[in-house]
Amino acid sequence: MRQNNLASVLDVLRRESVTRSALVASTGLTRSTMAGLVAELAELGLIDEITPVATGRPGRPSPLVRLVPGAVAALAIDVSVTRLSVGLVGLDGRTISVSERDGDRSNESPHATADAVAEMAQRIGVGSDSCPLLVGAGVAVPGLVRERDAHVVVAPNLGWEDVAFAELVAGTIERRLGVCLSVDIGNEADLGALAEARFGVGRGTRNVVYIHGDIGVGGSIVVDGARFPGGSGYAGEVGHMVINPYGSPCRCGARGCWETEVGERALLTRAGLDPTGGSAAIDALVEGAVSGDPIVLAALGETGRWLGIGLAGLINVLDPDLFVLGGMFEPLLPFMSECLEAELMERRFGPVERTVPVVAAELGIDALLIGAAELVLARAMADPAGAVTFGG
Amino acid sequence: MRQNNLASVLDVLRRESVTRSALVASTGLTRSTMAGLVAELAELGLIDEITPVATGRPGRPSPLVRLVPGAVAALAIDVSVTRLSVGLVGLDGRTISVSERDGDRSNESPHATADAVAEMAQRIGVGSDSCPLLVGAGVAVPGLVRERDAHVVVAPNLGWEDVAFAELVAGTIERRLGVCLSVDIGNEADLGALAEARFGVGRGTRNVVYIHGDIGVGGSIVVDGARFPGGSGYAGEVGHMVINPYGSPCRCGARGCWETEVGERALLTRAGLDPTGGSAAIDALVEGAVSGDPIVLAALGETGRWLGIGLAGLINVLDPDLFVLGGMFEPLLPFMSECLEAELMERRFGPVERTVPVVAAELGIDALLIGAAELVLARAMADPAGAVTFGG
Repeated sequence: MRQNNLASVLDVLRRESVTRSALVASTGLTRSTMAGLVAELAELGLIDEITPVATGRPGRPSPLVRLVPGAVAALAIDVSVTRLSVGLVGLDGRTISVSERDGDRSNESPHATADAVAEMAQRIGVGSDSCPLLVGAGVAVPGLVRERDAHVVVAPNLGWEDVAFAELVAGTIERRLGVCLSVDIGNEADLGALAEARFGVGRGTRNVVYIHGDIGVGGSIVVDGARFPGGSGYAGEVGHMVINPYGSPCRCGARGCWETEVGERALLTRAGLDPTGGSAAIDALVEGAVSGDPIVLAALGETGRWLGIGLAGLINVLDPDLFVLGGMFEPLLPFMSECLEAELMERRFGPVERTVPVVAAELGIDALLIGAAELVLARAMADPAGAVTFGG
Repeated sequence: MRQNNLASVLDVLRRESVTRSALVASTGLTRSTMAGLVAELAELGLIDEITPVATGRPGRPSPLVRLVPGAVAALAIDVSVTRLSVGLVGLDGRTISVSERDGDRSNESPHATADAVAEMAQRIGVGSDSCPLLVGAGVAVPGLVRERDAHVVVAPNLGWEDVAFAELVAGTIERRLGVCLSVDIGNEADLGALAEARFGVGRGTRNVVYIHGDIGVGGSIVVDGARFPGGSGYAGEVGHMVINPYGSPCRCGARGCWETEVGERALLTRAGLDPTGGSAAIDALVEGAVSGDPIVLAALGETGRWLGIGLAGLINVLDPDLFVLGGMFEPLLPFMSECLEAELMERRFGPVERTVPVVAAELGIDALLIGAAELVLARAMADPAGAVTFGG
């Protein structure tokens, strides 16, 4: 009971600093219970109270209860094909420090990657006296992670198959830095979704469907701040809904998957650009859109139309409160919205009056670090006293 | 804690009668805790122990703990367009008694339906001394039920719009039979799904997606024995996934929804039968399939193919452990399986080795009564002592 109450208080404070009265109102606990909980969390070094600067309005402003900045953190690791990022993320979902290393790692072994992670972790202070208390480490990978044993089943663009990368990172950090951390791992779209749902544009929304646009189109379903995993942990692969059964072959081996109509290659092809041009081509596309290039705008309109067709179907299957579009969709959404919304309107399910907003992600490249950290922070903060006393 | 433990014991016994040792093994509680729980549930009149007949094997068979048949029940009501059914359903998910009334009720007012429900409830003993202890009533309707206020937003084939039918039934039964019952209400596909997932072919499976074939194609997502509602309670309308964007117009106002390819009308049209022929035409179709009519078999094959295309997409979005096909799909599945499985095989998501079984529902016409009862039984059995002491 007390543990649940501590967790509820932290859950509020992780989103914003508030007065004691606001804590009482949003948790439904009594004032005296709240006083005890606040004292216990302050004792653990997790929270303190600050008095805001007077605003000129009458009366003294009430003190705000807040998380102590940098008291507790998670080590976050984002393994992407062209960049490795390692950072510390605080309880408030903000990065404290980040080390990044650019370069193509499509031929790097998991061992080499784990070694690089340990080096970069050392650079940002892991193992030193100045490091915040770490409750664990989280890793984001561009691949499928099996629920059962947390193995990376396959990460095609890294060339990994069935890799126990979380164990490998834990072992390497322990051996090289003498720090023992429990390490969790998740798919990048799932962690981007978690970050946006908890700390980004989906904050405060219960049912969020996140869609990540890239060469592949991934997705993730977040319900009440937690990922909906499905039976084997693979739910949310919305890019492989069949949307055009007579359409183009898909990388996955099927035909007419949503990805074949809304993925990077389809978009670049429609715009008359090199479909294998990668992020440079997408940057050129964004520039073309901004400058009003009619071919680019038509390509974005057509892609927006296909996005709308798929989203209309997802509304009927999943009934979310919000769609968050990340990856390449983040800068491109403004140029696709009109066609997208027209399809949604035309295809909406007759008897139900319902509008599901479609918005761009807002955390940018930090989203994956924040999501990876949240894997461990959320669990640790379910039992704050245990986490702070025993570490990760 | 004790309440949770009582609920866990009942949860096991609702599925099967087992020995005390099996209860200990499946709940993880100690033998002495279990003895106390069994005593308390026996005291409440919910369970007893029976000794099985000796099997000829050495040793005395262990007594089985079981639910007392008919000790506690829910009143279940199934409002379909052509039939009204009212029954008592026991804790084990079996019907104790049922009253049915055939006839077209597409022009009947909700008040007249509620009056008929009360009469039929009286006929099966509600309000008499012989009636089991009722923990509440559940209603299945062929329409959309809003999560927030449990109103039937729309039931097109009944001609209902925004009807507070649960309240109406509760009021009518109280006025006419002097019995005060809390009444819950749900969509028929959702309740068919709940029944199949808890007591039918999905028993013991965690993630079940149920698809109900009729003129409309409805569906429901069941996770850990409970419905996944989505943001507004409308999740699972899989019939309105867009699957053929250039396909036929759908009743819902959109175009190329899954329903336009796998619904009753598409199937009957393919078989050269009257698309508005209803259940008689479906019966003729089943006969044709059994006797090997090549046109009927081709129509079923093509429909199976479209079923497979949609299921392949749903696997990637929802990652279920099992698909259960009900309604007209129940008798027809054997004739569609081959084409359906071929599509699933061709369209499966490359890197993941996964087979999701597709099976026919097995509870038949009782499914909706069982599902409607489960709405109230599941909630009551979360606090068995409270439910038995205070009634519904």
